[in-house]
Amino acid sequence: MNELSAPLTAPAFADVEAAAKRLEGKAVRTPLLEAPLLNAKLNARLLVKPECLQRTGSFKYRGAVNRLSLIPEADRARGVLAYSSGNHAQGVAYAASELGIKASIIMPKDAPELKIGNTRAYGAEVILYDRYSENREEIGQRIAAETGATLVRPYDDPGIIAGQGTIGLEIAAQAAEIGAKLDAVIVCCGGGGLVSGVALALDGAAPGVPVYSAEPENFDDMARSLASGKHERNDPDARSICDAIVTPTPGQITFGISKKLLAGGLAVSDGEALDAMAAAFRYLKIVVEPGGAVALAAALSGKLDIEGKTVAVVCSGGNADAEMFTRALSRQQD
Amino acid sequence: MNELSAPLTAPAFADVEAAAKRLEGKAVRTPLLEAPLLNAKLNARLLVKPECLQRTGSFKYRGAVNRLSLIPEADRARGVLAYSSGNHAQGVAYAASELGIKASIIMPKDAPELKIGNTRAYGAEVILYDRYSENREEIGQRIAAETGATLVRPYDDPGIIAGQGTIGLEIAAQAAEIGAKLDAVIVCCGGGGLVSGVALALDGAAPGVPVYSAEPENFDDMARSLASGKHERNDPDARSICDAIVTPTPGQITFGISKKLLAGGLAVSDGEALDAMAAAFRYLKIVVEPGGAVALAAALSGKLDIEGKTVAVVCSGGNADAEMFTRALSRQQD
Repeated sequence: MNELSAPLTAPAFADVEAAAKRLEGKAVRTPLLEAPLLNAKLNARLLVKPECLQRTGSFKYRGAVNRLSLIPEADRARGVLAYSSGNHAQGVAYAASELGIKASIIMPKDAPELKIGNTRAYGAEVILYDRYSENREEIGQRIAAETGATLVRPYDDPGIIAGQGTIGLEIAAQAAEIGAKLDAVIVCCGGGGLVSGVALALDGAAPGVPVYSAEPENFDDMARSLASGKHERNDPDARSICDAIVTPTPGQITFGISKKLLAGGLAVSDGEALDAMAAAFRYLKIVVEPGGAVALAAALSGKLDIEGKTVAVVCSGGNADAEMFTRALSRQQD
Repeated sequence: MNELSAPLTAPAFADVEAAAKRLEGKAVRTPLLEAPLLNAKLNARLLVKPECLQRTGSFKYRGAVNRLSLIPEADRARGVLAYSSGNHAQGVAYAASELGIKASIIMPKDAPELKIGNTRAYGAEVILYDRYSENREEIGQRIAAETGATLVRPYDDPGIIAGQGTIGLEIAAQAAEIGAKLDAVIVCCGGGGLVSGVALALDGAAPGVPVYSAEPENFDDMARSLASGKHERNDPDARSICDAIVTPTPGQITFGISKKLLAGGLAVSDGEALDAMAAAFRYLKIVVEPGGAVALAAALSGKLDIEGKTVAVVCSGGNADAEMFTRALSRQQD
């Protein structure tokens, strides 16, 4: 069986628990950080899950390890295939190298050199395409047909969602360890693999805690889809610096879970994302990329009323380049 | 009893274990990070203990919590007193606020603004002095004599050393958890509280692992003292951007432990510290300040031959201001 023929079924809480077992000793159990001075400023207790500290610099490694572990032994020799210009590429490439599986990653030739270089350095074969004249799905399907490689989707896959959901299990356990009762959790959202996985995990491990998606303005397809109850799409001409999460519309499985389990969707401006990066630098000493900072940005900019509350936010990735980080630090801060 | 009358006796391994119990549920158990691409570049396995993620942004909180917990109830109302360029200041200020103890902190007027501001924000009274024309020990002893406050020394105190040593216990346990056999550990060194504590902990928890101090060039008093077997002092005109660790000479207790337990001392240039900050940004997604980066810098710049080895380094603090961090990121990197 390869992923192209796999049914689009939602994972269950037990799948998240099984993923956690598979990730043991591989993924970093990232700490749950908080900064007293930031708490004082916000008059709230903000708990930050820094997945920028995860292997390959983002949470994507979790889903990749879990999904790749589910590939039957007999299919592994034919390799895996993924499309991505960023964090999913690196997560799949590194997870594949650990399992001794050949990875082919289809990346746009104008992707940042560092991301292409990192993906190659993790041992993957990178296939570059021209995003303006070529279709990556066609290239992927041709390669999959030729080689029998398993396609590893970035979010709309039960194994991927369950892997990302392990973050929710850890948040629930780590909050309990410090005696914190969560009033809300905010999670960055592109296609929705992370937020739906975390919502699924919390529904089992800490039921009743409201979970919110956070997206860039103009890419708030999840927020609008949750509001309307059907798949909404973003304006194809929209642009954002939050490159990791500028997907056109929620996934089928991820929206199915989100519709059932999310309390709502929040959206932040690029400026608010940059300010959150600067706050993460100053108060938490972590490097967060724009797309990884939108959940923190939603909390800091008051998109959710967190006053007097205990709120966890996921900082989902840290693969920012020096120029973007410097831009965030140079903004006027109070 | 106040600290001025406390004997300068070295702590034992059991004191580090007791400190670990006192820190449970208060200090962050910082993860042991590694970056596959950095490992590949170095042809080594580099394990990074990011104490920048500790409460107040540096390891100093550990020693402060432990030391303040040892103050008899009857003495607490008279407060505590500390001198520090910044990280010990914040650690003591925050630990004191948690325990409801009044803290007065003597800081050089040219300390980073962030550190002075944070120390005040943690609730301490800050007393500024000129580090080139005034003697902070004299100021501290005068205030202690007037108020009866307990002087909390930054490093030459058994309670402080035992507290910092809990990092060594965690390194030993976390390395064992991932099946890593340590060939060496490198630790940032100012007065030596951290490196002597870590050496003491490893001597008990992972005996036989060589531990090295790392210092800025021109502030390599520990390295030279280890070589000569007696207290060496730095040139009073020396300057370094590593403001957290520019102490004149090793402490009495810390040098006593270090002489017995350290394998040697390493020194790095300011440029090498900045390059290590940039590498920590790029590969590990953590914010490290110059003085907190010297152990990593020693590993990256080949001050110790780490090829083919498994080496742990402590990144001891992350209280860098935006200007210094931007300076590190703007350097030409390979």
